[in-house]
Amino acid sequence: MIWCRFEAEGKPAYGLVEGEAVREVEGSPFDAYTATDRTRSLASVRLLVPCEPPTIYACGVNYEAHARWASEYFGRDMTRSKPEVNYRGVNALLAHDQAIVIPRDSTGDIHYEAELAAIIGRQAKHLTKEDALSCVLGYTILNDVSERAWQRQDKTIWRSKNSDTFNPLGPWIVTDLDVANAETEVRINGSVASHFATGKMIYDLTTYLVETSRYLTLLPGDVMSLGTDGATVPGLPEGDVIEIEITGLGTLRNHVTREKLN
Amino acid sequence: MIWCRFEAEGKPAYGLVEGEAVREVEGSPFDAYTATDRTRSLASVRLLVPCEPPTIYACGVNYEAHARWASEYFGRDMTRSKPEVNYRGVNALLAHDQAIVIPRDSTGDIHYEAELAAIIGRQAKHLTKEDALSCVLGYTILNDVSERAWQRQDKTIWRSKNSDTFNPLGPWIVTDLDVANAETEVRINGSVASHFATGKMIYDLTTYLVETSRYLTLLPGDVMSLGTDGATVPGLPEGDVIEIEITGLGTLRNHVTREKLN
Repeated sequence: MIWCRFEAEGKPAYGLVEGEAVREVEGSPFDAYTATDRTRSLASVRLLVPCEPPTIYACGVNYEAHARWASEYFGRDMTRSKPEVNYRGVNALLAHDQAIVIPRDSTGDIHYEAELAAIIGRQAKHLTKEDALSCVLGYTILNDVSERAWQRQDKTIWRSKNSDTFNPLGPWIVTDLDVANAETEVRINGSVASHFATGKMIYDLTTYLVETSRYLTLLPGDVMSLGTDGATVPGLPEGDVIEIEITGLGTLRNHVTREKLN
Repeated sequence: MIWCRFEAEGKPAYGLVEGEAVREVEGSPFDAYTATDRTRSLASVRLLVPCEPPTIYACGVNYEAHARWASEYFGRDMTRSKPEVNYRGVNALLAHDQAIVIPRDSTGDIHYEAELAAIIGRQAKHLTKEDALSCVLGYTILNDVSERAWQRQDKTIWRSKNSDTFNPLGPWIVTDLDVANAETEVRINGSVASHFATGKMIYDLTTYLVETSRYLTLLPGDVMSLGTDGATVPGLPEGDVIEIEITGLGTLRNHVTREKLN
């Protein structure tokens, strides 16, 4: 099942992607819903961010090669000895096909981070290893866009990772995914920039759900983004098109622009 | 004007506090609203968290004496050379008069942090010094409850500052506040534990609004919590009652319990 959110007569609506069509739904996947008989062609709809997360949790530094790269890049030990989450701002969410806007005073040292993101489907606390995944509605793709100069010089990740448009999420939510056999590929202007096994995380989703839900109530629509692998490529200049594809989830595509000076 | 949110026949509603009464409102302070002729006695209503923030921004280490104390306490320089925000989780919000619940495996080293919090009233970006405060609906109190053992040992502040119930917010939103002349007082079981001049911040609200809105779109209901002053007292054991009073805003009161073992 593929859930999307799109603009229907100027208002957001949830829909089900059925081949090349989108069937409009009344309600949402997080509550009661009814599929309607209103369908549109997928190509004709403007996709929105696929849900409205109360919280975006980021499971940082969750792949071996990225941990090595990041530790070298930042000149300090970036490995995590246990699963810990950080936060991303909902202001920065961006839909598929919309523009990543580099802030006017950025150095331009903008990196992508291609991440598998789980979407929480129901309220949950004190999950066990056995039932953890039962709270997951499905999966989508998050691009954890990062301004590395700010990330190096600031004490928190507020603007380096949460400037408006820095959290592209989509294109939609797929309810069934074979994480163990999925591959993540990043393409810049059509050329492969990165490719890794999606499932080779240091701490898997079950571990993150169990650990976080010992203390935090997970809420419907929450995003848990599971980190990226490998080195990232410096500089996404204005005009670049970045695509992130994960097997079974499709492709999240965004282009890059620069904020205009007033 | 005093805005509250309360439980009306099992559903949340906004209201206006008028002396000892609450007048129910249709709509919200963030949108169009109509005051109704339905009033209740303030004493009889169950207050809810006074708004539903898309994001809770925390302006950390924003008073001189707290910066000195925290640097000594954590054994590293905690001062900020520029205004930077961090994040708090909405899962952890707690209303006035509700229980702070210490997680079952906490060491019990729970500190309060008494903070003035501004509530954003309208969407805003690229605010200037001159117009920054025009986006503020009003002010309330946030208790930035902190588990110091976890804060010392974890890499992020996920559970040390965002375990469920660790963000008491309230009791309500007051639209007019003389910040420069306000005083913050913390009382534990009725005894004064801390007292400081609310307005003696390192970076004031205007500075935070201007700086953050260069990169982040502020949204209606967002909370910007402005930090605490002084040392904080270790250990809020089960049974304690903590009150935070800020001149003109009233008192945020919560009691402390311990999560039951299953």
